[in-house]
Amino acid sequence: MGIAQEVPRGYLGIGDDVAAIPIGGRYAVLKVDMLVGSTDVPRGMNYRQAARKAVAMCVSDFAAKGVRPDSFMVSIGVERGTNQKQVDQLAAGFRDAEEAWGLRMVGGDTNEAKELVVDCVMIGFATRIVERKGARAGDILVVTGPFGCPPAGLKIMMERARAAKAFMAKALDSVRMPTPNLEVGLALSSYLTSSMDSSDGLARCLHVLAEESQIGFDLDRMPVAEGVADFADENGLSLQELVMAGGEEYVIVGTVSQRRLRAAMAAAKAAGGELMASGRATSKKGRVRLLEGKSRKSIGDDGWTHLAS
Amino acid sequence: MGIAQEVPRGYLGIGDDVAAIPIGGRYAVLKVDMLVGSTDVPRGMNYRQAARKAVAMCVSDFAAKGVRPDSFMVSIGVERGTNQKQVDQLAAGFRDAEEAWGLRMVGGDTNEAKELVVDCVMIGFATRIVERKGARAGDILVVTGPFGCPPAGLKIMMERARAAKAFMAKALDSVRMPTPNLEVGLALSSYLTSSMDSSDGLARCLHVLAEESQIGFDLDRMPVAEGVADFADENGLSLQELVMAGGEEYVIVGTVSQRRLRAAMAAAKAAGGELMASGRATSKKGRVRLLEGKSRKSIGDDGWTHLAS
Repeated sequence: MGIAQEVPRGYLGIGDDVAAIPIGGRYAVLKVDMLVGSTDVPRGMNYRQAARKAVAMCVSDFAAKGVRPDSFMVSIGVERGTNQKQVDQLAAGFRDAEEAWGLRMVGGDTNEAKELVVDCVMIGFATRIVERKGARAGDILVVTGPFGCPPAGLKIMMERARAAKAFMAKALDSVRMPTPNLEVGLALSSYLTSSMDSSDGLARCLHVLAEESQIGFDLDRMPVAEGVADFADENGLSLQELVMAGGEEYVIVGTVSQRRLRAAMAAAKAAGGELMASGRATSKKGRVRLLEGKSRKSIGDDGWTHLAS
Repeated sequence: MGIAQEVPRGYLGIGDDVAAIPIGGRYAVLKVDMLVGSTDVPRGMNYRQAARKAVAMCVSDFAAKGVRPDSFMVSIGVERGTNQKQVDQLAAGFRDAEEAWGLRMVGGDTNEAKELVVDCVMIGFATRIVERKGARAGDILVVTGPFGCPPAGLKIMMERARAAKAFMAKALDSVRMPTPNLEVGLALSSYLTSSMDSSDGLARCLHVLAEESQIGFDLDRMPVAEGVADFADENGLSLQELVMAGGEEYVIVGTVSQRRLRAAMAAAKAAGGELMASGRATSKKGRVRLLEGKSRKSIGDDGWTHLAS
């Protein structure tokens, strides 16, 4: 939007998932993320879930940066006529988030606005932050989970897409109760050479990481969540679009050096999660390809297939 | 609004102007304040001024707490159809704020929303914070400036109130370009026994300070800005309401011990501002009175005169 300003020396800021402010040998790590009712709260998501989601959006960025968040504040706008029950639901959602990720809510601000706005501010402290840049050609592309459930859930909620019962529950849950895996992010922090959270979609994420490290990526396979291929088939949707061009995915996408891959996988597992190798960083700047059998597709920034190369 | 949660030991949080998170012998001090187009941006205030104001609102709280802010982030919601010129104006307003108070903007988030929302997050570091509580009966009530200009400015902008030319310019300026005096706040930090910023109006501020320290206040006189009495007369408005029940005032209201008053006044002057003694803290919990000649008015939380006592 053109509001970015230059960030001073020693700071990590605009252009990464979090801002980091130097303080006596370490960083205060800050993130602010605004949840807006009309764009971030689909019909079928209640105030408690919306409040929890606003915090989850920030937790996801901290997880990707390998930094444990300490506490958060919320700045809230509510419509005139919002009732006590809805306010109580927001409070319950913040408590859910406190419990889910061991956080403390330490303040906030409440305002009247034309729609629900929950702006979450999160703070933590760290001596090291995994940046978006830092990958080298030859590093392994890794993800902490498969993709496609939240986009499928949104299609179910917004466009009445059909789905098998078990998958429907899983897909809806992934939208209403997004659960970034903070412990896995912390466990991986010393292994990742670069990373970011995938809330803007996998393709976008790969292009940003490629740009930041002046590399490219070749994916061996798409990291597809179970049930997503059947869901795409049943609804006549593009599987590639669901996996590559979705959003609201709170998975960490990053790189690890080849020799540390096994140890990183073991660390993710020990933290209760998983790490999947999905491809490789290449020296071809800005090129993101999907290699399937003998075919080579070039994946654009928007997740669609463009000119093959 | 009932969303407050308990703040853990060692933290300063909900219920003060800022939150403070302990980190290795000092505090990371955080403030978040949301500017909402429909309620905080009167007609006649442009995007550049609105952006600057969002930052000023946070600076005012840091000034009142005696903490130098280090940097800020902004989370922005803009209406569909917002044009590049408006976005550039917002950016210019953030730069104005950086220059006015020696700050750095280190990040942000941009979203689509139904109206303009600018949520500013500010961070600083301190070993000591002037809290809302801490005053004792006998302390002198002090303010860093007189009151009434912003409420008059709002009456001019919103209700076409009449005003003399010079006063009109000053009043409008106080609304469009609020300028909390950060240096004075920093200079006073070691003198103030309690303080808060007066953005919700003087009466409200006095009641909150009284409550927090379990004291009362007797005002000798209302701190009236030059021209406000004439403005009230000319428009048939209550002077007391303009001074006590306004808002958008970015003045520090606090207490200093009697023996340190002169030194505090000198410190404020050396920092380019002023400190006015306006009354005294009393042991009568929660009672806020205005003593004028032989009359004693009881001032309610809303700035109006209630039962005399």
